[in-house]
Amino acid sequence: MRLSQAYQPTLKEVPAEAQIASHRLMLRAGLIRQTSAGIYAWLPAGLRVLRNIAQIVREEQNAIGAEEILMPTLQSAELWKRSGRYDAYGPEMLRIQDRHKRELLYGPTNEEMVTDIFGTTVKSYRELPKMLYHIQWKFRDEIRPRFGVMRGREFYMKDAYSFDASYEDAEKSYYRMMLSYLRIFRRLGVQAVPMAADTGPIGGNLSHEFLVLAPTGESGVFYNNDWDSIDWNSLPLDPKKDEDLDKLKDLVANSYAATDEKHDEASWAKLPDEKRREGRGIEVGHIFYFGTKYTESMGVEVSGADGAAFHPHMGSYGIGVSRLVGAIIEASHDDAGIIWPEEVAPYKVALLNLRPGDEVCDQLCEEFYALKPDAILYDDRSERAGVKFNDADLMGHPWQAIIGPRGAKTRTIELKNRASGERLELTFDDAIAKLGLK
Amino acid sequence: MRLSQAYQPTLKEVPAEAQIASHRLMLRAGLIRQTSAGIYAWLPAGLRVLRNIAQIVREEQNAIGAEEILMPTLQSAELWKRSGRYDAYGPEMLRIQDRHKRELLYGPTNEEMVTDIFGTTVKSYRELPKMLYHIQWKFRDEIRPRFGVMRGREFYMKDAYSFDASYEDAEKSYYRMMLSYLRIFRRLGVQAVPMAADTGPIGGNLSHEFLVLAPTGESGVFYNNDWDSIDWNSLPLDPKKDEDLDKLKDLVANSYAATDEKHDEASWAKLPDEKRREGRGIEVGHIFYFGTKYTESMGVEVSGADGAAFHPHMGSYGIGVSRLVGAIIEASHDDAGIIWPEEVAPYKVALLNLRPGDEVCDQLCEEFYALKPDAILYDDRSERAGVKFNDADLMGHPWQAIIGPRGAKTRTIELKNRASGERLELTFDDAIAKLGLK
Repeated sequence: MRLSQAYQPTLKEVPAEAQIASHRLMLRAGLIRQTSAGIYAWLPAGLRVLRNIAQIVREEQNAIGAEEILMPTLQSAELWKRSGRYDAYGPEMLRIQDRHKRELLYGPTNEEMVTDIFGTTVKSYRELPKMLYHIQWKFRDEIRPRFGVMRGREFYMKDAYSFDASYEDAEKSYYRMMLSYLRIFRRLGVQAVPMAADTGPIGGNLSHEFLVLAPTGESGVFYNNDWDSIDWNSLPLDPKKDEDLDKLKDLVANSYAATDEKHDEASWAKLPDEKRREGRGIEVGHIFYFGTKYTESMGVEVSGADGAAFHPHMGSYGIGVSRLVGAIIEASHDDAGIIWPEEVAPYKVALLNLRPGDEVCDQLCEEFYALKPDAILYDDRSERAGVKFNDADLMGHPWQAIIGPRGAKTRTIELKNRASGERLELTFDDAIAKLGLK
Repeated sequence: MRLSQAYQPTLKEVPAEAQIASHRLMLRAGLIRQTSAGIYAWLPAGLRVLRNIAQIVREEQNAIGAEEILMPTLQSAELWKRSGRYDAYGPEMLRIQDRHKRELLYGPTNEEMVTDIFGTTVKSYRELPKMLYHIQWKFRDEIRPRFGVMRGREFYMKDAYSFDASYEDAEKSYYRMMLSYLRIFRRLGVQAVPMAADTGPIGGNLSHEFLVLAPTGESGVFYNNDWDSIDWNSLPLDPKKDEDLDKLKDLVANSYAATDEKHDEASWAKLPDEKRREGRGIEVGHIFYFGTKYTESMGVEVSGADGAAFHPHMGSYGIGVSRLVGAIIEASHDDAGIIWPEEVAPYKVALLNLRPGDEVCDQLCEEFYALKPDAILYDDRSERAGVKFNDADLMGHPWQAIIGPRGAKTRTIELKNRASGERLELTFDDAIAKLGLK
């Protein structure tokens, strides 16, 4: 994309309502605009990030055999009356009447709907286990929406649901999903640690929340630093193998991690000093096993091997996709702006032409840009070099490729790594090889 | 995908509420489930089609320089009061009160919101022309939702908005968008013809609707058969060149096409007999130029070259993405089921293993499937051949690759083209070359 033509309205002044870094940076870098309290429009660069995150989630969910569907945003109140949650949910649920005075609601989550769909389509134990997920806009009418997309009212969420024949099978689905989550967060470039959690209004008795470590996090966290070093994506754990899921279960049980609410001083004291890490975290995911709570209350059964009908065991598994955009920035920024992890960034490279109008400079920039226009944000504006450097740092693309009139004569490019600040003077060919643009 | 593991609940019985072919076939083939009146959940195969359509729309919109954003589903009533449409819109608008008694609505369209966003971010004529679009769920509270996704209440729509400095520029944007639409529909495998239309509640004085020709269409259409033969995607019209847009304008002005509402017998009579085509059509897109209606009523201005502020000219451009799933099926099906156009199909190939359990047969199927699992639906179920043939015809993938025990011994595959019914006996290597799976 050419920045001169791109719709990316950066802001010079920090808006007063933005109290935290991610909110300020998302507004300054032109990623979002608020349209109502806690409701945002995503501008092109923000949408690219949102979609990159959703795509990573999708790939990793598909990799464990979960299947993607798409449920609507509006649900019938009837469904929630069947489970008993309609009255229990409280004022965060946005309740709606249609023209025929039928009660609808804007889905805050989908346990009821997916249970109903499952019940009308799956008839036999032979079709289990089944995992369905969708990535859809949800609404929770927060009394005081704040912190930008971190605590918005209309938000984008991936929610998955598992159906199993027994507790033992459901536990496997639970840890299969946990492995998928650990791989997702690692690919997103953040460090997320699962911590035992209360189950709240979803119900059930097995639950973990995933916290991204960030100095501005809302919760205090205490954890064994083993969590820091595990590369989940190269660890040879096969989600299809029961013994590998058992290994993960043991690992989780034996590596301490807790939010301040659940922190247990006695267990903590047993950990050697050099293993203890304290910090702060932002919740970005939450997984639950809740047994037959919904299949029983909603009367959903399948037939078993012996011909007798039974209520499948369920779990639900959420990732806050729009919230993650904010959380990643909280975990990865500096005074100059955002530092995007590679797989999430709107563009991999910001190409800075330091002298638009200079023929040699323009030519080399065009040659570079033509390599992969969709991965490069080409700053071809007639602005001073200082403005371009500042905007590139603010927007936070992983690499800056800087081409000035002097370097252009010898086909030399300066590469700057946004995260490390490292600078390299390279020939054109070496630079594009380094960036994988060839 | 292996069909034995896929969540694709086909129905044997035609549901009574489904009155038209596309609705029946979408339910029978397991593409959708109704969750409330006029509101549907998309099952995996249906979601793949929906996403394929959205992706084609996206690519062609990007190709004319439109930029993708994503506006929220819920809007503030305040915005619509500024334009004067809040009271005018009537009972199809779903009106909502939040917990603080603030009035919201579920967006049926986004002229107001995009005008407001534009107004707070674009300040100068130098940033024009600007085209923004999004693909988002909308809601219109139809009094009698019917025909499945063809007339649903919650529906997926691409809506684009153009901002220009003058009528002349806005007209260019209008025909640029028309070219994009003609290319989109061609890629979707349907024949869509633009027809002069009334502007209705959007306002304005230049408007075309795009009708997909289908025998079950809601409107009668009359058109010059020149429209049948133009391949818009290979026609050398450059959307960046004014003279090419003029050519398109002339072509549209001189090739008769009208719905029965607008049909003009005098113009029709002038057309030679062999050029006249009559048929029926389904509206799948609508484009409007409406000048400064919203920029004036909402007080949005940018500064001109002479320093004086002016109201930009606008157009809006919609494509019914979820409606198209139904429209494509109406245009492309037979008694046995759906006939998906290639770029839209959930899978390119249905692989039918006629004897699961036969070692040679299984092996050849696995070898075939491994070539591109994401493009192949592998029917590995232990069902009779007849069931597999029927289901493959029902689901409508463009190609069926049929492997039986006799053929497998000599590595022979039968390919069936779903649209033409043509059957080919090919060697394994020739078959995968023919299907482009190598």
